[in-house]
Parts: sequence; C-alpha cells; structure tokens
Amino acid sequence: MNPHTLDDVFCPYYTHAVELVGRRWSGAILRAVLLGKHRFNEIAAAIPGLSDRMLSERLKELEAEDILERLVADGSPARVSYCLTAKGEALHVVIMSLTGWAERWVTPEQTAGQQTA
Amino acid sequence: MNPHTLDDVFCPYYTHAVELVGRRWSGAILRAVLLGKHRFNEIAAAIPGLSDRMLSERLKELEAEDILERLVADGSPARVSYCLTAKGEALHVVIMSLTGWAERWVTPEQTAGQQTA
Repeated sequence: MNPHTLDDVFCPYYTHAVELVGRRWSGAILRAVLLGKHRFNEIAAAIPGLSDRMLSERLKELEAEDILERLVADGSPARVSYCLTAKGEALHVVIMSLTGWAERWVTPEQTAGQQTA
Repeated sequence: MNPHTLDDVFCPYYTHAVELVGRRWSGAILRAVLLGKHRFNEIAAAIPGLSDRMLSERLKELEAEDILERLVADGSPARVSYCLTAKGEALHVVIMSLTGWAERWVTPEQTAGQQTA
C-alpha cells in the first residue's frame, strides 16, 4: 500500500507527474497537442529541433501514461493522429499556468540553446 | 532577437520552464521548499531516495535560475538555508495545480519505483 497522505511534503504522485511532463520534449509536445496540433507531422513541424525518432518515442510514452490516444483513420496511407484523453485534457490548466509563469519570469538568455537537441 | 510570440504553438520560455521544473528531483525539491523545508538536511530527509550529492547539485541549479536563494546565518557551524525568490514563489500555483492533477489522475502503480534513484 502507498502510505502517502495529502499532508506529506513528498508526494509521489506529483513527483511522477512533474518528471513525466518535464521530460525532454514531452512538455513541448503536450502543449502542441493542446493547441491543436494532432498529426505526427504537424507536431514535428511545430517544435524546432525535435527529431522524428524522439517524437515517436515521447508519443509512445504519453500514450502508455494514458495522456494521449493514438487514432488511426482508414485510407491509404492511413492517417495517424493523437488526441488528448480526459486525463490529458485535465493538464490544460497546469500547462497554461506554467506558460504564464514562464512568459513572466524566464528570460530570452535562458532559452538560448532551447532549439537544439 | 527571439522571434517568439504568444500565439506560437512552440513557446521557448515554457519549454525551458517545464524541463527545468521537471528535471529529476527538482520538482520534488521545489515542493518541499514551498511547503516549509528550508534547511539542507530537512529537504534531504523529506525526499526518499535523494542523495546529498544530487540535492546539492539541484539546489545549485535552482539558485543559478534565480528560483532559490541560498542564505547563510552566522554561527558555528554556519547555518545554510534555502528560500524561494519572488520568481520561485510565483511557481506555487503551478506546483499546487500539478499536485491536484496528480492526486486525481496518477495511479499508485505509476509511482512504483518513484522512491529509488
């Protein structure tokens, strides 16, 4: 059993969440999907420096966490897209809150090198 | 110059922020300081599995980002503590918002292994 209570300073649920969302590229990918980019190529094009291989890996992780759902539409070639699950949609407020913090506090100098892998 | 605008799907400020807060242990350390743990040993004791070496490294990073301030009080031995800067305090709402999400959506199974380095 997990002995965690809400009063604990250490919250294993939060720790899992923050390190999941904050893994290299994952936060940027989630924000792109939240803002309407659903196809693999759209997401790839929206994020400078993100390779197809790394995008594919991160999408699989987010799918395994039940944050994204992979949808395949019939056709030739079949169209693959990624949508947020209810669990993923619920991250919207967190991600926009962090965007607000970043716009206020992060300096351009700190983002230098952001666009390289 | 940074060509970023608020309408962009990719936000370099947010990406920097999410990967900073989500770095291994950093999110847990920030939450511990937010919840009143200020001395090195208090923070170390609050977070299972976190080594002194890693805590020291992460505290330096958060200090370099101007999120934490290192305070030394006279005495023998000198007492070192860490407080949030205004920039760090402003993360409170983000971290509590993510805690709320995690309490609702993260399962105990997903936190298995959380307490090992």
